[in-house]
Amino acid sequence: MTEKKINLSEKEMPTQWYNLQADLPKPLDPPIHPGTKQPITPDMLAPIFPMELIKQEVSSERWIDIPEEVQNIYKIWRPTPLVRACRLEKFLDTPAKIYFKNESFSPPGSHKPNTAVAQAYYNKKEGVKRLATETGAGQWGSALAFACKFFDLKCLVFMVRISYQQKPYRRSLMEVWGATVIPSPSDKTDFGKKVLAEDPDSIGSLGIAISEAIEVAAKNDDTKYSLGSVLNHVLLHQTITGLETKKQFEKIDEYPDILIGCCGGGSNFSGLIFPFMPDKLKGKKMRMIAVEPAACPSLTKGLYAYDFGDTAGQTPLLKMYTLGSQFIPPGIHAGGLRYHGAAPLLSAAVHNGWVEVAAPNQNPVFESAIIWSQTEGAIPAPETAHAIRTTIDEAIKCKKSGEKKTIVLLYSGHGHFDLSAYDAYLAKKLEDYEYPVEKVHEAMKHIPKV
Amino acid sequence: MTEKKINLSEKEMPTQWYNLQADLPKPLDPPIHPGTKQPITPDMLAPIFPMELIKQEVSSERWIDIPEEVQNIYKIWRPTPLVRACRLEKFLDTPAKIYFKNESFSPPGSHKPNTAVAQAYYNKKEGVKRLATETGAGQWGSALAFACKFFDLKCLVFMVRISYQQKPYRRSLMEVWGATVIPSPSDKTDFGKKVLAEDPDSIGSLGIAISEAIEVAAKNDDTKYSLGSVLNHVLLHQTITGLETKKQFEKIDEYPDILIGCCGGGSNFSGLIFPFMPDKLKGKKMRMIAVEPAACPSLTKGLYAYDFGDTAGQTPLLKMYTLGSQFIPPGIHAGGLRYHGAAPLLSAAVHNGWVEVAAPNQNPVFESAIIWSQTEGAIPAPETAHAIRTTIDEAIKCKKSGEKKTIVLLYSGHGHFDLSAYDAYLAKKLEDYEYPVEKVHEAMKHIPKV
Repeated sequence: MTEKKINLSEKEMPTQWYNLQADLPKPLDPPIHPGTKQPITPDMLAPIFPMELIKQEVSSERWIDIPEEVQNIYKIWRPTPLVRACRLEKFLDTPAKIYFKNESFSPPGSHKPNTAVAQAYYNKKEGVKRLATETGAGQWGSALAFACKFFDLKCLVFMVRISYQQKPYRRSLMEVWGATVIPSPSDKTDFGKKVLAEDPDSIGSLGIAISEAIEVAAKNDDTKYSLGSVLNHVLLHQTITGLETKKQFEKIDEYPDILIGCCGGGSNFSGLIFPFMPDKLKGKKMRMIAVEPAACPSLTKGLYAYDFGDTAGQTPLLKMYTLGSQFIPPGIHAGGLRYHGAAPLLSAAVHNGWVEVAAPNQNPVFESAIIWSQTEGAIPAPETAHAIRTTIDEAIKCKKSGEKKTIVLLYSGHGHFDLSAYDAYLAKKLEDYEYPVEKVHEAMKHIPKV
Repeated sequence: MTEKKINLSEKEMPTQWYNLQADLPKPLDPPIHPGTKQPITPDMLAPIFPMELIKQEVSSERWIDIPEEVQNIYKIWRPTPLVRACRLEKFLDTPAKIYFKNESFSPPGSHKPNTAVAQAYYNKKEGVKRLATETGAGQWGSALAFACKFFDLKCLVFMVRISYQQKPYRRSLMEVWGATVIPSPSDKTDFGKKVLAEDPDSIGSLGIAISEAIEVAAKNDDTKYSLGSVLNHVLLHQTITGLETKKQFEKIDEYPDILIGCCGGGSNFSGLIFPFMPDKLKGKKMRMIAVEPAACPSLTKGLYAYDFGDTAGQTPLLKMYTLGSQFIPPGIHAGGLRYHGAAPLLSAAVHNGWVEVAAPNQNPVFESAIIWSQTEGAIPAPETAHAIRTTIDEAIKCKKSGEKKTIVLLYSGHGHFDLSAYDAYLAKKLEDYEYPVEKVHEAMKHIPKV
């Protein structure tokens, strides 16, 4: 066969991001102010984001230049390879062709620095001295710590307390890159203090950590806030992966039939699919499948409604699929992707019927991670393993139907910091858990009326 | 500038290994039998190694074909990139050009699978059912576990007890690839029982674990032993890295002035330098520097003598630089590279004056690891950081002298499983320790008379 890896040279790396907002049949429902219920204006976001990112957030330009400084940092690990998963195909005995876009070779080990580097750059350019953010398992926090180091910014990370305790190595990673890491809830913010007063043993949640980071940004002139998913500008920066993938398929004169990615906030999946969306909207037959955990099923069981992005209710209201901003995923869930909502742009794509959704349980997810490790060699992040699960399911369908589909999987990160979850799986300690519809209905009561 | 990464296509990957034994001015001193003191014969090794590897061990053929099956597995991560470390150069303000050969992208995260895959293949081909080996921090054990999975061999790993306890994620990694991991000393072997009888709390050592693995191989017909460094065939397999590096320099029409690698048993460094050695022996000016820890200084302070490869004294006697087979590195040493000896082929090269040696302390080594992480982005293995230390030292010398030397560093692996050592360094808990000459002299008493 031809080469297993389809590489691009650095010169072939895309120099613009693709903005799906330019090609939507109708504009997105705007973020609205929770008090006035009116669309928010850019100046309302200025205390927490730099103006260039706010402009990108609302832009309807189709192509946005990637600054040269950002391209230079990208080239530490980009362009990333598109790889044929020949051994997995053979193991499954499927006529399908399986390709994966490998984002695991970035220094933080995932797709996250695609936006972290861009965000650090724009903040630095506008004179910001420090970025505050939240992190769960630590993928996003380590990506932002990495990016801040390259633009000489300070980085303050509120890390969900349970992860801070259980995943010390992710914390070390952030510290190697010079970040300050604080377990959340903390006594560094009013909201953190409030949570601790109510529950001194709180294990924390992403929503709480977001609230703390935003509070710090709002109260300190030299500090802005940085979010690793959900927002339009984050998804924009992630399109570098889909744009490269398109170029790589052009090189081998193929075109994918099915695009698959895991979905928490939705940025890695959106980054893969958005550059293919114009073709789909013009009638090209192509399936796109977002895969989320059964334990945190915002796209499959959530409501499509305006909701807060954080737990304290400090953010604008975003129109999105949500389980309610008070949602805390069950402790037994080991597989990441724990956010209560999904990106508005992706939510719209799902609502419009352009994107399918799947929500496997965690034992079948880890089973597929082991199959991957033992066929393709590398150890995937549990998040990535969700996409692998659905890829395997689709490849098995192809075996039954005899269809030679071309499947592409966004391999979002490695699992080197997640081996305790693998340990639990191999020791048969992981329980499956489907978040019940009744609980969703209960949580919905907290969704504000608009 | 031109591209930062110099890539080879899969078609450009070398299809033969280079055997330095073909170009030695005089043959290596042979391994000898500890009882008879006579050179050992291939049949004496047959109980623990497959014949094809024994042949490679004594071969004087210059080029040895890489089997297609091995090439196919190599292509999971090979050819690996040669990368210009532009940001480190800028940080050091040096006129030197620094390149690194990046072996960290293999699924086990180091150069080790270059030989693990080959060894698994030859064993499988000769009907072996199981491989037994030892591992310290886990780099070698995980590489062999990975390789065995691809050739459907069982894998039994004796893991130095202190690492087994302190590095549970490396154990998990091996188990994900299907290996059985046992803390050493164990009650599974006579030698392990003997050690435990003398010291029930023994933390273990590489030498003890090697003895246990060899014992299992010697006593079980279906099992052979596999070693991750030291032996000629291991170094042979590692030459794939130096051969690729040579090709990559040819592509940019440059030639290195200084080659640097870290050195425990010596396989990664030898893999880099051996393919360049014929040029050097023909008069090409080029320095080669092996970097070992001050806490385990076999090349800088050891004796060049016949010694055992293991603690129990089961192996043939090898002519090498050694600290004595009873050597146990100090507990405070966090940086890997803990073996008491060095590969006979490399030892001869050092003895002949072809190779220089350096032995930095661990705090300066970790300091250089942080500099690397904050300039080039990725987190190096502590082992690799030894080579980085000397690279930085040489680049600083170039700054002082104004020389525009081209330095190449074998970036042997990532540090994703070593963040507890980084943690200790950042918390200023690491102590420097230079293994004293008196202790070496004491240890030498155990070296057998030949």
